[in-house]
Amino acid sequence: MVAVIESVSEMREFIGQAKLQGKKVGLVPTMGALHEGHLSLMAEARNCCDIVVASIFVNPTQFGPNEDYSAYPRTWQADLAACQRAGVDVVFHPAVAEMYPEGWSTWVNVEGITEKLCGKTRPGHFRGVTTVVTKLFNIVQPNKAFFGQKDAQQVVVLMKLVRDLNMDVELHMVPIVRDSDGLAKSSRNSYLTPEQRTAALVLSHSLQRARSLVMQGEQDCRLIVSEVRNTIMKEPLAVLEYVEIYAFPELQEITTINGKALLAVAGRFGTTRLIDNVILEERE
Amino acid sequence: MVAVIESVSEMREFIGQAKLQGKKVGLVPTMGALHEGHLSLMAEARNCCDIVVASIFVNPTQFGPNEDYSAYPRTWQADLAACQRAGVDVVFHPAVAEMYPEGWSTWVNVEGITEKLCGKTRPGHFRGVTTVVTKLFNIVQPNKAFFGQKDAQQVVVLMKLVRDLNMDVELHMVPIVRDSDGLAKSSRNSYLTPEQRTAALVLSHSLQRARSLVMQGEQDCRLIVSEVRNTIMKEPLAVLEYVEIYAFPELQEITTINGKALLAVAGRFGTTRLIDNVILEERE
Repeated sequence: MVAVIESVSEMREFIGQAKLQGKKVGLVPTMGALHEGHLSLMAEARNCCDIVVASIFVNPTQFGPNEDYSAYPRTWQADLAACQRAGVDVVFHPAVAEMYPEGWSTWVNVEGITEKLCGKTRPGHFRGVTTVVTKLFNIVQPNKAFFGQKDAQQVVVLMKLVRDLNMDVELHMVPIVRDSDGLAKSSRNSYLTPEQRTAALVLSHSLQRARSLVMQGEQDCRLIVSEVRNTIMKEPLAVLEYVEIYAFPELQEITTINGKALLAVAGRFGTTRLIDNVILEERE
Repeated sequence: MVAVIESVSEMREFIGQAKLQGKKVGLVPTMGALHEGHLSLMAEARNCCDIVVASIFVNPTQFGPNEDYSAYPRTWQADLAACQRAGVDVVFHPAVAEMYPEGWSTWVNVEGITEKLCGKTRPGHFRGVTTVVTKLFNIVQPNKAFFGQKDAQQVVVLMKLVRDLNMDVELHMVPIVRDSDGLAKSSRNSYLTPEQRTAALVLSHSLQRARSLVMQGEQDCRLIVSEVRNTIMKEPLAVLEYVEIYAFPELQEITTINGKALLAVAGRFGTTRLIDNVILEERE
């Protein structure tokens, strides 16, 4: 039976015992509203760790004032059942006041790569992510932590966080899980009307188109971006936010695909903001 | 014989071994130029830990652009001998490029209590301190870490850092060590001319005067501050920077001594900036 721990001190005690026994601890940080993407993170953690901890915490500090913090889907009973089925040992499920008690005021910020892509329209978002992840790492002290490629910029930012602050944890990036028609799994997909959901397929379709171009030998970033942009703009229900290509995982600007590159897109469908991406590699 | 470790990976390996054997690790972070204040930290660490690590690292990120980073005293051979005599097991002595490699850009910042006292004239100082201490804690993973009361605001900021980011380390504040005439030990005392050194005694003398007042029953912060300020301003070689009283350890503003209060002073003697403090407690 999966255990549920709500307090930092109990979590610490549990982990202390596990470490004394030499167990390798894996952490899957989530905001709940679990879908197959999260389950693939848990499966990977189960596969390479002795103890799997999943955190379920809708983190207020990574939402902007006009974002969907209150509306964010909370599906606790289903999430708990899903963790149970995924073989999670412990669900860490703190209250907001447990993570951010009265008077709390300490931030962790990765500069330089958090201002572009999603950081441009979501100022403060990554600061909230790096802060809560630092706290979770300090509480759970995982040997490995698992994040989805769906949030590719988040993974890159967290890799830099770990490196820059000398954290003793190994990050694993797990591939994007998609519905059979290509839509990337996201807790926010539940906001979409059927028409918006159909329209949202334009994101994955445009990325597939880009991948084909690169496999055919195309290396010009401006041309690829332009193709993707035009594809998305043809969809009347889509409001494009960005289409950008950066070197992966450094997120430096590039004009030509040389080695690995992240092609990332964001757009709105009604009030729902969705993101998707693909990692491109120049043809051998 | 004390071991010297210069790389993060070697330090991590050493600590991993120690932890496997269930050893309690104590960390004494220093910038070198060791004096009896540092030695008292090491003695305390030696007293309550199995393994004592002292770091010697003049941390560039905590110095402002017009401060004494380049001039800061570096006395490596004497420091190493002092660590040896103090029973330190390992001196962690990284190069700047080992701690801040090319491309490094991640900061840890405690907001709210880092802008007052020394933070006012040294913007960015505490951000540098909290960042490097976070890194050192992640590298050395100490059970306990030792800091001097001389830098009382630093101790308060680090206590908040540890609490706010859920770090699993216990901080010990060790009392100020003074020369026989009262001058608080400081690596920066070496900058003083004999005349300045004599003048600098005004700091500890003014704090002693304040302590006497409180022991006589005085509780009015404005009156105590005014006494200290007047005492220091009578010294022609002293340029007063601040005299302030805050609740300890919260650093909230107070007007009356109720419970513990930090009376802190800063002043310049020539180009040398010195600080000193006393923790006042209302008479029982």
